Amino acid sequence: MCRWIAYSGSPVNLEDLLYKPERSLVMQSKHSRLGAETINGDGFGIGWYSRPPRPGLFHSTDPAWNDRNLRELSALAWSGRVFAHIRASTGTAVQQTNCHPFRYGRWLWMHNGLINDFSTIKRDMTLAVDPALFPLIEGSTDSELFFYLALTYGLENDPPRAVARAVGVIEAIGRNHGVEYPMQMTVATTDGETTWAFRYSTEEKSRSLFRSTDISALRALHPTHELLQGLSADARLVVSEPLGDLEGAWQEVPEASTLVVQGARAEVSSFSPTPV
Amino acid sequence: MCRWIAYSGSPVNLEDLLYKPERSLVMQSKHSRLGAETINGDGFGIGWYSRPPRPGLFHSTDPAWNDRNLRELSALAWSGRVFAHIRASTGTAVQQTNCHPFRYGRWLWMHNGLINDFSTIKRDMTLAVDPALFPLIEGSTDSELFFYLALTYGLENDPPRAVARAVGVIEAIGRNHGVEYPMQMTVATTDGETTWAFRYSTEEKSRSLFRSTDISALRALHPTHELLQGLSADARLVVSEPLGDLEGAWQEVPEASTLVVQGARAEVSSFSPTPV
Amino acid sequence: MCRWIAYSGSPVNLEDLLYKPERSLVMQSKHSRLGAETINGDGFGIGWYSRPPRPGLFHSTDPAWNDRNLRELSALAWSGRVFAHIRASTGTAVQQTNCHPFRYGRWLWMHNGLINDFSTIKRDMTLAVDPALFPLIEGSTDSELFFYLALTYGLENDPPRAVARAVGVIEAIGRNHGVEYPMQMTVATTDGETTWAFRYSTEEKSRSLFRSTDISALRALHPTHELLQGLSADARLVVSEPLGDLEGAWQEVPEASTLVVQGARAEVSSFSPTPV
Amino acid sequence: MCRWIAYSGSPVNLEDLLYKPERSLVMQSKHSRLGAETINGDGFGIGWYSRPPRPGLFHSTDPAWNDRNLRELSALAWSGRVFAHIRASTGTAVQQTNCHPFRYGRWLWMHNGLINDFSTIKRDMTLAVDPALFPLIEGSTDSELFFYLALTYGLENDPPRAVARAVGVIEAIGRNHGVEYPMQMTVATTDGETTWAFRYSTEEKSRSLFRSTDISALRALHPTHELLQGLSADARLVVSEPLGDLEGAWQEVPEASTLVVQGARAEVSSFSPTPV
Repeated sequence: MCRWIAYSGSPVNLEDLLYKPERSLVMQSKHSRLGAETINGDGFGIGWYSRPPRPGLFHSTDPAWNDRNLRELSALAWSGRVFAHIRASTGTAVQQTNCHPFRYGRWLWMHNGLINDFSTIKRDMTLAVDPALFPLIEGSTDSELFFYLALTYGLENDPPRAVARAVGVIEAIGRNHGVEYPMQMTVATTDGETTWAFRYSTEEKSRSLFRSTDISALRALHPTHELLQGLSADARLVVSEPLGDLEGAWQEVPEASTLVVQGARAEVSSFSPTPV
Repeated sequence: MCRWIAYSGSPVNLEDLLYKPERSLVMQSKHSRLGAETINGDGFGIGWYSRPPRPGLFHSTDPAWNDRNLRELSALAWSGRVFAHIRASTGTAVQQTNCHPFRYGRWLWMHNGLINDFSTIKRDMTLAVDPALFPLIEGSTDSELFFYLALTYGLENDPPRAVARAVGVIEAIGRNHGVEYPMQMTVATTDGETTWAFRYSTEEKSRSLFRSTDISALRALHPTHELLQGLSADARLVVSEPLGDLEGAWQEVPEASTLVVQGARAEVSSFSPTPV
Repeated sequence: MCRWIAYSGSPVNLEDLLYKPERSLVMQSKHSRLGAETINGDGFGIGWYSRPPRPGLFHSTDPAWNDRNLRELSALAWSGRVFAHIRASTGTAVQQTNCHPFRYGRWLWMHNGLINDFSTIKRDMTLAVDPALFPLIEGSTDSELFFYLALTYGLENDPPRAVARAVGVIEAIGRNHGVEYPMQMTVATTDGETTWAFRYSTEEKSRSLFRSTDISALRALHPTHELLQGLSADARLVVSEPLGDLEGAWQEVPEASTLVVQGARAEVSSFSPTPV
Repeated sequence: MCRWIAYSGSPVNLEDLLYKPERSLVMQSKHSRLGAETINGDGFGIGWYSRPPRPGLFHSTDPAWNDRNLRELSALAWSGRVFAHIRASTGTAVQQTNCHPFRYGRWLWMHNGLINDFSTIKRDMTLAVDPALFPLIEGSTDSELFFYLALTYGLENDPPRAVARAVGVIEAIGRNHGVEYPMQMTVATTDGETTWAFRYSTEEKSRSLFRSTDISALRALHPTHELLQGLSADARLVVSEPLGDLEGAWQEVPEASTLVVQGARAEVSSFSPTPV
């Protein structure tokens, strides 16, 4: 199990984003409260847009709390769109090619959760990937393969539709192999302009997912809160776990939902896999 | 803060020793119960004697729970004397040269605890090391420097006396720099034939230290316990934290003590630093 | 391009084998004479049998010349059958799961060379792997996939036949995709009792391959050579590059050959892929 | 032995600087022409100013040619002042704390060469460091200790004077220990505004050092050279080895020299250690 955050808004310093909050992602790497595992020490990654359209990636197999290069890089980098992920492996090797976020062109993708009995259904999932995309798969995780399935089904054109189809296909493959609850996921993906997040599990007991409240409303509530003053009105965070206890700051994204964040606008709709 | 175990007795397989106990050291790397930190993910090390007199070393900066080479090596190695240590850094860099156990000739040394305000007193500690030993210091930890001080004061000839003098010197240096409680330690050291362990802190609130009960008595108590049947009567473990809940298996080593384990014989005496 | 050695015979110390020869494998990692690349600094691995049937593995992404754990392990390990490999990546990621030798049960496999246009033909190669074996593939190299194809075609029962079929299949897949010279290889594989080595390339310009001369004859030639005196009469080395300039010590294995080493017996026969 | 480059001028993209030249520093990590070693695979580092005064650092123990994070970071970072260094260890451990450039406040320092018999004279060098600076030493190299000696002798106020004194002290310590030629060096240091480079060795056979020619003159010579057109008139490179064969592009810095680069102005004067 993993933890992740997706930020969009006015350019923020990555150190402010990743290290300074009360329960920052780097802190969560040692002490997650809501994760299935309390430790996320099996590598981490960040993806950030500083010269769009292509995002930069930093992947490491060290625990995030120990990585000096992450700290240095974070102190100097500013970005208006950041994905960050800390990993707790569910079995696959701890190596850079298994670190999230994954990248394809201008797209980023990260996943918390797992595909149950992945080793059983991995081959059929692999076969379902567009042969033109297949050579780009670098690692061995369920999460990356899920990304390439979503790309196969049109992620670049219609993300909610592509993810619904990919999940439908994975569930169908799982059922064929006798897997009762194939999918457990919160996923975030972006093309550098819009962020889509999904919360879903076949079992209907999905990993936690939260989004930040409207910054203007939050500022009114906490007029002396320093960090809030520095953020633009359209700043939005989508997170697997709140970054602090600030009252009124976080709203849970409901079970089986799609969340679309575009500028200040954040819309939640229901998510269901496309039957195959 | 760290966790460690020191085994002596009939040759054991390292995998049996490090992975199989209910609360094995590798498990403790993720979930320590008694440590000052619950996670010990900042590297680890093992030292073992398979072709005496010189012990082998394996040091890694990966969390122990992720290291495949440790697992492979453990499956194939047998030894009658093993030191193993998992590290939670108290500030110094996570690098192989900072991993315990440290080695000098046939000697091993490992430490749980810390020297308070180490950066303040490090220089004077460094100056106190025998100039002939100085070039051998490879890392930057308090623990390794403490080892070289103990060597300077005669560890090879009389370990309890040398450790008492080294601690006395460190406390004197600390006092000179206004450090109230310089020393916090459990230490184990061996020449390949005898193991000495020390529990002490200036503040008289030392880290936990346990030793295993006499194996014969324990066998009588648990006649069906598989692991126990495989051990020789003189097998002994000294550990910073019990490896399981087996009733009657563990005795606490008292505050301010020296424990000497030679074959089946284990003697506890009081420890006090030599005033300088 | 890579370098490898396969040893069989009386148990040798791994340090003697890997570090001490005039042009040892570890030295070759910095300065190979016959390789397509002079540097093999993209990780390494060793596989050795010390408690058969299952061999141990040590894989590292560090350059071999820097790895202290390899040196420590080598000093303490003895084995009558050792595979060692240093890697120069032809494009795939430098990670432990891409380090040779690869293992399946009691089998080891290592490869020097490459499958040309691998990214183009990887998918069809993947589909050709037995679905029961597919989940065991951990890395992303051509070499590991080639191993699983050989296993698919019966490596465990008849290695020369299985390798001939696997190469035939790879060449057929390559031709379908317009790849002129799909295969470039020297390969070694063992079940812990016999070693098979293959030298072949579609282009008929294969990487170098050598085997050691009969030890008894060599001893007569060099009666004062220390290392030779310690080896048993049936000791044999198969290497991608000679380990020194000792006159009479090395015989080249001819282009398009299979070499079978069983005890003191070493037989060379011609190798040709099974047409598909 | 190592290789390094120091750039100052209009902001350049780090990928353009580190990867694109014909004989870029990253290429030199595999195939140096003028170095004492052809391979510099024992880690690397870069320091760059993007939000002065404090420079950022990226240190890695991987060979530079393999580091994906370096490539990603380089693609996104621009800076008007960059230090980059690839390391070939002369004995000390390969670890991040031994990677150049070293940093103190706004200062960077990197070194090619070595202090002969370092282990013999290290203790006396250590004692000569200002006790207030001593706790900041993190690694175990001669190069970092040399940096802290230069800081002790006033690097921040008068770099040429401080380096001359530090070298004088090191030579005196060396002589006391019977070391014939203690110092071998090319060094670069900067406060973010001026770069000082030094070429010197006790033996008067110093490592190579070059500086780029005036860009305007070079442009006149090569009016169609693309890279040149992108650089400002005051762009300057100081390098241990030329980055390409462009005629007229490089001038050797003479034996026993100090080079000061401030904006477009580059002045060479003679260097000699201050006798102690």
